[in-house]
Amino acid sequence: MGEFDLIERFFKPAAAQPGAAAQIALGIGDDCALLQPGAGMQLAVSSDMLVQGRHFFADADPVALGHKALAVNLSDLAAMGARPLCFTLALALPAADECWLAGFSNGLLALARQHQCPLVGGDTTRGPLNICICVLGEVPAGQALRRSGAQVDDDIWVSGTLGDARLALQALQGQCALPAPVLAQARQRLDRPTPRVALGQALRGIASSAIDLSDGLAADLRHVLRASDVGAVLDATALANLLAVGASTFAASDLPDAPTCLSLALTGGDDYELLFTAAPARQADILAAARTAQTPVTRVGHVVAERGLWQTGPHGARTPVDARGFDHFG
Amino acid sequence: MGEFDLIERFFKPAAAQPGAAAQIALGIGDDCALLQPGAGMQLAVSSDMLVQGRHFFADADPVALGHKALAVNLSDLAAMGARPLCFTLALALPAADECWLAGFSNGLLALARQHQCPLVGGDTTRGPLNICICVLGEVPAGQALRRSGAQVDDDIWVSGTLGDARLALQALQGQCALPAPVLAQARQRLDRPTPRVALGQALRGIASSAIDLSDGLAADLRHVLRASDVGAVLDATALANLLAVGASTFAASDLPDAPTCLSLALTGGDDYELLFTAAPARQADILAAARTAQTPVTRVGHVVAERGLWQTGPHGARTPVDARGFDHFG
Repeated sequence: MGEFDLIERFFKPAAAQPGAAAQIALGIGDDCALLQPGAGMQLAVSSDMLVQGRHFFADADPVALGHKALAVNLSDLAAMGARPLCFTLALALPAADECWLAGFSNGLLALARQHQCPLVGGDTTRGPLNICICVLGEVPAGQALRRSGAQVDDDIWVSGTLGDARLALQALQGQCALPAPVLAQARQRLDRPTPRVALGQALRGIASSAIDLSDGLAADLRHVLRASDVGAVLDATALANLLAVGASTFAASDLPDAPTCLSLALTGGDDYELLFTAAPARQADILAAARTAQTPVTRVGHVVAERGLWQTGPHGARTPVDARGFDHFG
Repeated sequence: MGEFDLIERFFKPAAAQPGAAAQIALGIGDDCALLQPGAGMQLAVSSDMLVQGRHFFADADPVALGHKALAVNLSDLAAMGARPLCFTLALALPAADECWLAGFSNGLLALARQHQCPLVGGDTTRGPLNICICVLGEVPAGQALRRSGAQVDDDIWVSGTLGDARLALQALQGQCALPAPVLAQARQRLDRPTPRVALGQALRGIASSAIDLSDGLAADLRHVLRASDVGAVLDATALANLLAVGASTFAASDLPDAPTCLSLALTGGDDYELLFTAAPARQADILAAARTAQTPVTRVGHVVAERGLWQTGPHGARTPVDARGFDHFG
């Protein structure tokens, strides 16, 4: 199977069809794709690379990998409040393994269809497995959610659940033991993160800042605090209750203890949830946006003027958060 | 050195500065970059991945590699007649080698500056060396040069010189012997291709189709012929004279023979020149565009109705071209 057969067979079904969207003037098959953003719209652009042995195991399910490769990119669009338009895929493969390609393209394609975000171009080459996606979205000019807008006294919110992906990773790496059903549920969050695309768009005009959680809440929140020149106090009790498996019917004895849950939420990474800030007066709007987007949200702290990051426990004592996030070269 | 220090130190100088271009509303440093294309403009998007051992040697000069990684992407914009706007860079590195990074970012940055095409985002991770760039450009709506516009009787043109990159590669791989000065000149074309960005834009409204030459003229021309539903006859004599080293003062005995030169031009690959078609009546316009862009062009054949690809030698006999281009999975 040659390079062009491979694209034709596995990726054409994910490709932009003529007339798929008014914004896609030309899809796959030329030197470039051509986009025509709507009047008054800005284009949001982001790129993420997944590497075997770093972001996923060598035996990773290719369907889940196809899903995740696009999901982590869509999550960046969500964090800007942008609507997905299309993506490019550059893929280095050790060999043209048809079984792997079928699974990968199925996982990729299903999520692309769900978000009406077709493939418009890219590159395939031989090499150590590497998946690089560049995603493009559209947002009304001036309405993108930036990292720099957090204001003193704003509430800090997160979507969904935190820490399960890292818990699953630790169990898979033998660093902790988990009952099989607990691991299975946590692993869903590791393998198939849900980009919060609808919530991001629903938060336009409501949230003062936003970021997606990929390196762990503490590290990612620090990017917002630095960009906004503010500090934050986090509610340790709220954070320790954010594991998806913690909200299930598992016995408490089958789950990590509270300090571990807090640590997973703060430093876990790979959550692909949104963290956002908003004025306290916008609480009703936020809950309405969350209902519209069918995505739970939780208030986990507030913004303060003094630069730094603290947590408060059940008795109100403030302690500094020194947890750092994942750093590929740290 | 952590991931964020690495970006700050080596890639911030290449990043979009505030007010760099009206089209770049937000550069590096948030979840996405934001672009605001000019009124009536379409965005052209393309992505290419370079892998060690496949596209370059392990000991490749990092300055040349930085140049080439962006050049091959700019070449795709050139082939659409688009003006470069900005790019994202996703980089997998085995280690944060400061010397390598300094060279790579210097080569990348110099070409980015030359084309006023700043870095607006991306990703860095640890892994086998892999460079993935996604480039964005701007072209007036409806004026992009497509592969599908070639008409019967159109002339076929190429820019610059062909075959030197493959000649250098063959010499470096020990498949042929070249005098050191010949290799040095040919190697410049392998290591530092020149994306024909100005020519691509100058050909808008003149060329009926265009493609950039990355896999070899025969293979890339076939993409144009298929998309345009036509065939072509190439001038073997013209093609055999397209080596840059052939136009130099080297003795004929130091250079490949004519059949080898023809083969290098047809199947060499890695040329990053433009191939384009135009009506014979546009010849003066093409030569004027070439002068404006300070890029030589050569007529190398013409389009015919019968599907297929032929070459004619000095005595006019037509023979089929069966040469195929480079295929990563062939």
